[in-house]
Amino acid sequence: MNIRITGSGSYIPGRAVKNSDFSGHVFLDDDGTLLPYSNEVISGKFRQITGIEERRYVEEGLLTSDIGFFAAQKAIEDGDIDPETLDYIIFAHNFGNVKHGAIQTDILPSLASRVKHSLRIKNPRCVAYDILFGCPGWVEGVIQAQAFIKAGIARRCLVIGAETLSRVVDPHDRDSMIYSDGAGASIIELSEEEGGILAHETATYTYEEAYFLFFGNSFNKEHDPDVRYIKMHGRKIYEFALNHVPQAMKACVDRSGIQIADIKKVLIHQANEKMDEAIVQRFFKLYGFTPARHIMPMCIGKLGNSSVATIPTLYDLMVKGRLENQTLSKGDVIIFASVGSGMNINAIVYRM
Amino acid sequence: MNIRITGSGSYIPGRAVKNSDFSGHVFLDDDGTLLPYSNEVISGKFRQITGIEERRYVEEGLLTSDIGFFAAQKAIEDGDIDPETLDYIIFAHNFGNVKHGAIQTDILPSLASRVKHSLRIKNPRCVAYDILFGCPGWVEGVIQAQAFIKAGIARRCLVIGAETLSRVVDPHDRDSMIYSDGAGASIIELSEEEGGILAHETATYTYEEAYFLFFGNSFNKEHDPDVRYIKMHGRKIYEFALNHVPQAMKACVDRSGIQIADIKKVLIHQANEKMDEAIVQRFFKLYGFTPARHIMPMCIGKLGNSSVATIPTLYDLMVKGRLENQTLSKGDVIIFASVGSGMNINAIVYRM
Repeated sequence: MNIRITGSGSYIPGRAVKNSDFSGHVFLDDDGTLLPYSNEVISGKFRQITGIEERRYVEEGLLTSDIGFFAAQKAIEDGDIDPETLDYIIFAHNFGNVKHGAIQTDILPSLASRVKHSLRIKNPRCVAYDILFGCPGWVEGVIQAQAFIKAGIARRCLVIGAETLSRVVDPHDRDSMIYSDGAGASIIELSEEEGGILAHETATYTYEEAYFLFFGNSFNKEHDPDVRYIKMHGRKIYEFALNHVPQAMKACVDRSGIQIADIKKVLIHQANEKMDEAIVQRFFKLYGFTPARHIMPMCIGKLGNSSVATIPTLYDLMVKGRLENQTLSKGDVIIFASVGSGMNINAIVYRM
Repeated sequence: MNIRITGSGSYIPGRAVKNSDFSGHVFLDDDGTLLPYSNEVISGKFRQITGIEERRYVEEGLLTSDIGFFAAQKAIEDGDIDPETLDYIIFAHNFGNVKHGAIQTDILPSLASRVKHSLRIKNPRCVAYDILFGCPGWVEGVIQAQAFIKAGIARRCLVIGAETLSRVVDPHDRDSMIYSDGAGASIIELSEEEGGILAHETATYTYEEAYFLFFGNSFNKEHDPDVRYIKMHGRKIYEFALNHVPQAMKACVDRSGIQIADIKKVLIHQANEKMDEAIVQRFFKLYGFTPARHIMPMCIGKLGNSSVATIPTLYDLMVKGRLENQTLSKGDVIIFASVGSGMNINAIVYRM
């Protein structure tokens, strides 16, 4: 049974926001004190660690479900499928629809239902639901689609990852510069063609880690305590990721039966360039293997961290030939790997 | 392969709120005009249609994830299982955690991750995620657990449905009297014992129906337009449910191979007593069959409509012998059926 990605789409919001656009922000420490550096120094260090020069924000009138729909349309067009034949629409996100200037999350109805409505699908047997699984939500949606296909209750699924993090950032937190908006979508289906998903791995760490990423107050202590933003314990996440993601990737590769030398590309969640590099280095080191240059395609520099959207967007850019020096060819073996809120980790070994 | 419910728990919040407790409310029409009836008349008609005399609200300090955790603890105790052996924790809800007096939804991390944290589970291979699927979310979580078991990626899952609708109701909307808080949880697992899930059915209707239940403004037009509440087009939902739920239940029963005369109980989402009765009547009429009295156990009178929590709570009350004149015995065939936001419908035929 081969389960393959047969269509891909992404939506990259139009507003490019540069690091210098944050120059007027008052960045505080988590205790509310002013950071003892100029914004130029903060921005320089930020770029050095994260690799981010720009991020993308949606226009004021757009919502997460809108951009998820745009990506879904493109995936359907790319896969050349009749949307009425979809058995599932799985929408991964972590904040729902948040209107510009408002603070409430709107998840009634689910974003998957809204996309199905916008796609004008009539077939009631196309089941639409949302999954909340942190940044690894799109990868997990693919794993769930695979399970439904294996269980015989689906043949073709649309998996969307979309987020508008620009609506939930604390302007006083320098971590706000990390976050971006974006959407990616893929058609996952039972196929007679060789290849597809060879193995997957998922882990949820909550014992110590559950609140490493959380919804918290502004660093500006004068702000309303009932208004919360995306917050993270960056150092803890870095250590956690380095300790656990390479192992999860290895477990996945070992189960797939693929040799480490045959891995062509690692499509890792675009969280933070230095962290991603360290994870991938440590992963190959577990095999005593030195990876080829360009094994880790990156788009974080211009697109930032758009949570669930980074991996399907990266994949889409590559298959469409829109990422410099990065292509994917028939038969290539790649790994998708992600880490994020939950704390969740997952990986898929996939043959193109 | 038998997939059975092997443990059950529920949490019924302590604060009983009577219809008379709404006597001071100013109920408006959706256009903002005062309803031309006394609150006594409104309350009497409300009770006649919905069957609701009381509903339950959580204490101010509790959140949806807290009561989901309480129900989960009871299900684990009832199932006499080691929580470290769980492969999945699936948490169905529709509004996340909303603090008393605040309006933001907090879903970072997922409520499933919070429950896993509170259960002190260390096993990282216990995957925790949330599903948003309207009121049918708990039933859909069971269907997903079944798919994971069938696909060979799980053996034992914890499925939770919890909601604190008291935090998202518009006090000027008489529909606010419908909604309640509650939590139910079940252990779903591969079993050598006979029986279990015999068939399931899921449908998502979005073409015309996506926004029959939605997040909308107060009927009081002077309220902040950026504050929204659970809202519904009651009449449309009623007609939709009557047109589609009986058919979905029939499709499920037909697929199960069970004869209509062998259905012992219909555990239907406690949405509205008159609507539930009409659905069940029409379902049996599709077979030209007259059901036995008491075939439809109800707890809405005292517990209201707690969304995802109604069915697992109803089931829990029955298996624990806590619902008057309603028991379940080994070998009994029952149907779970639900309808709600999305608009989603689902059903499971289950042998005890």
